[in-house]
Parts: sequence; structure tokens; C-alpha cells
Amino acid sequence: MPPSPSTDVRRHPERGGDAALVREVLDEALIVHLGVVRDGWPVVLPMAHGRDGDTLYVHGSAAAGLFRDLRRGSKACVTATVVDGLVLARSAFNHSMNYRCAVVYGEAVPAVDLAAAVRAVTDHNLPGRFDAVRPPSEAELAETGVWQLDLATASAKARRGGTIDEPADLGLPVWAGVIPVGLAFAPPVPEKDLADGAPPPPDVRR
Amino acid sequence: MPPSPSTDVRRHPERGGDAALVREVLDEALIVHLGVVRDGWPVVLPMAHGRDGDTLYVHGSAAAGLFRDLRRGSKACVTATVVDGLVLARSAFNHSMNYRCAVVYGEAVPAVDLAAAVRAVTDHNLPGRFDAVRPPSEAELAETGVWQLDLATASAKARRGGTIDEPADLGLPVWAGVIPVGLAFAPPVPEKDLADGAPPPPDVRR
Repeated sequence: MPPSPSTDVRRHPERGGDAALVREVLDEALIVHLGVVRDGWPVVLPMAHGRDGDTLYVHGSAAAGLFRDLRRGSKACVTATVVDGLVLARSAFNHSMNYRCAVVYGEAVPAVDLAAAVRAVTDHNLPGRFDAVRPPSEAELAETGVWQLDLATASAKARRGGTIDEPADLGLPVWAGVIPVGLAFAPPVPEKDLADGAPPPPDVRR
Repeated sequence: MPPSPSTDVRRHPERGGDAALVREVLDEALIVHLGVVRDGWPVVLPMAHGRDGDTLYVHGSAAAGLFRDLRRGSKACVTATVVDGLVLARSAFNHSMNYRCAVVYGEAVPAVDLAAAVRAVTDHNLPGRFDAVRPPSEAELAETGVWQLDLATASAKARRGGTIDEPADLGLPVWAGVIPVGLAFAPPVPEKDLADGAPPPPDVRR
């Protein structure tokens, strides 16, 4: 049995999420953090990912160390977090963050359909990208490591809203509120040697 | 001995970092991901953090599940990742991301100087904030969980620059380049019941 992913949810049950929130967070996060166990130590590294239905893919070189750990039988924990805001309270103690987080536990297996997996990962941060580029060769697929987990064992948690201050602190002359945080994309920087007729796809321009 | 954090650095030695990069990434990241081992499973969750010299603090409720795992003897892995850009290549295979990542392995211990730890965490995303707010009471400190790790066992890795395409792909009519990514902060949303004379501190306005 995987560890209960709901430890913190039990502490803050109002922050517990559902399957829709799991998908939302996984889709919005640019990356995930994959955790494995290596000789009794936790090892956590960022990975590219993608989702297709209830299947989560994590992507790296086939030779990546974390995949070696998975091959050796390590369980996996994949965590995606989106920070939505800094919550500034009147007391140090009540400072917090608004965020959404999805956690997927499981026994990861190599992608059953590697072509579909590579498509999902390529399209993750730029929908439609896979169909706009040269698809992978057999040799490239052989060098590609994609492992998958089922979202059945996923959970999510979110903190939203304003500050929660002690009643006694409300009169303090301290600014309190939320600073919203999000991702920003700067104008694309094209390679210098682009072929004629290589248009920025709509998603790149957006 | 902790697992070698340099597995991926060995694969891409040009991406290996140094102590300065470790500090830079930890300071820039809004959150970290803390990994522990629970009953043989990896457990990875986002945490607030702060840094003071070569000490990294991770912060949560004293009752948080991850701290219980640390009390039971689990080793810790703290990973901070900043995504800097989406790297769009002419082939699916050569898509990548620009990022900076710091990984700290160790045996975490409860913060030796809890007051200093809470200050570092409170100031992490808004320098100077601790001195602008009500400091924690003894009762609040007792409810606060802050654990620390030494940066001696930290490593860092970064990917920077443009796309790396196969020579044979350079003539393809596919847009290639980098979409820079960063954090954006929206205008602060003040609480409705702010006391008179509660000014947004300079860091909030910025």
C-alpha cells in the first residue's frame, strides 16, 4: 500500500482536492518532481511530463539515474505544484502561500505506448507541437525514457483565499493581503538559422 | 553516504553547478520539494523554505507528516527548481527546457535556532518582512516545524541556451527557439479590514 497521500489533507480537510484538481494541476505545471528511493535515501529531481487521460508520463533520457532506480523496483512519487500567491499576514506565524498541488504514488512502468507517451510530453507545454515537428526516429525512441503512472492513486490539495489572522492582530498597522503569482512568457527568441518558411506556430505566438 | 546527486550531472557534465548556483536557485525558488522515505515509499511534498548562509530551512506545521518521517529517521532530499524557458526544437526528440535546479541531501534536524529559522523563512519571498510583522509568540513557535539541512552536500545543475538540433533537421520549415519563462507578480490584493496606517511595505509594492 502506498503511504497515505492525505496526511496534510487530514490536517486541512478543507484543502483536499479531487480528480479534476489533480488533472488541472498536472496540466498547468511546467514540470513535476519525481521522487524515488535509492539505497534507502530519497532522491527527488525535476522531470518533464505529460498526461493522457488517467495516465501520467514522466520523461527523461533512457539512461537517467531515476529510471535506473525505477527499474530496480523503487516506488515512485510524482508531485506537481503550482504557486498562486504569497499570503502576507499581520503576524509571521500566519504567513502562507496559495498553491495547488497534485501527488501521484505508484509503481511506475515503462510507457506502454511510447509513441503516445512522447506525443503527450511534447504537447504538454505547447499543445499541438508534436504534429508541427519531425517525429522521433526509432533510434531516438530507443534513447527516450518515458515511464507512466496511473492517476488512480493521485490526490490533490489547494490553499486559496486571503489571509487568516488572529483577531487580536487585526488592528496592527501591518499591511496584509495576497500577492498573486503566475507564470509569464516573454517573446519567443528564434534560433538564428531558421529555414525560410518556418512560422511561429499559433501556440508559440500566444 | 547519500546517493550521488550527480547522476545527471555525470551525463551532462557541462550542466553541473557550484555552491554559488545552489544558493542562487534556493534563493530564487518560491518553494522547494521535500522528499522523504515512508515505509519504503518516496513521499514528495512542497514546502516553504529559507536560507541563512549554508543552512537551508524547510518549514511547515510541527504536526506535518513529513516531519514525523524525519523524526523517525528518514533521510531528506530537498530539491528547488526554477524553469527559465521552453526549448523548442525542430524534432520532438530535441525539445528541452532551460532550468536551474539545486538538490540538497542530508539528515535533517530540527532548527537549532528556531527564531533565526522563522526569520529566514518569513523573509525568503519578501526580504524584510519579518521585521514588519508581529513576531511569533512562544505558543506559535511551539506549533511551528522548521528543520534544517547543511548545504555542504548540495549540488546544482542548469540547462541554458538555445536549441540543439540535428544538422539534418536545420532545413526543416519548423519554428525553433526558446520561449523564456519567469514568474510574474500581479498587483497586491489587500485584505478588506486593514487598519489605518498599514502601508504596503516597499517590497510589497515592488
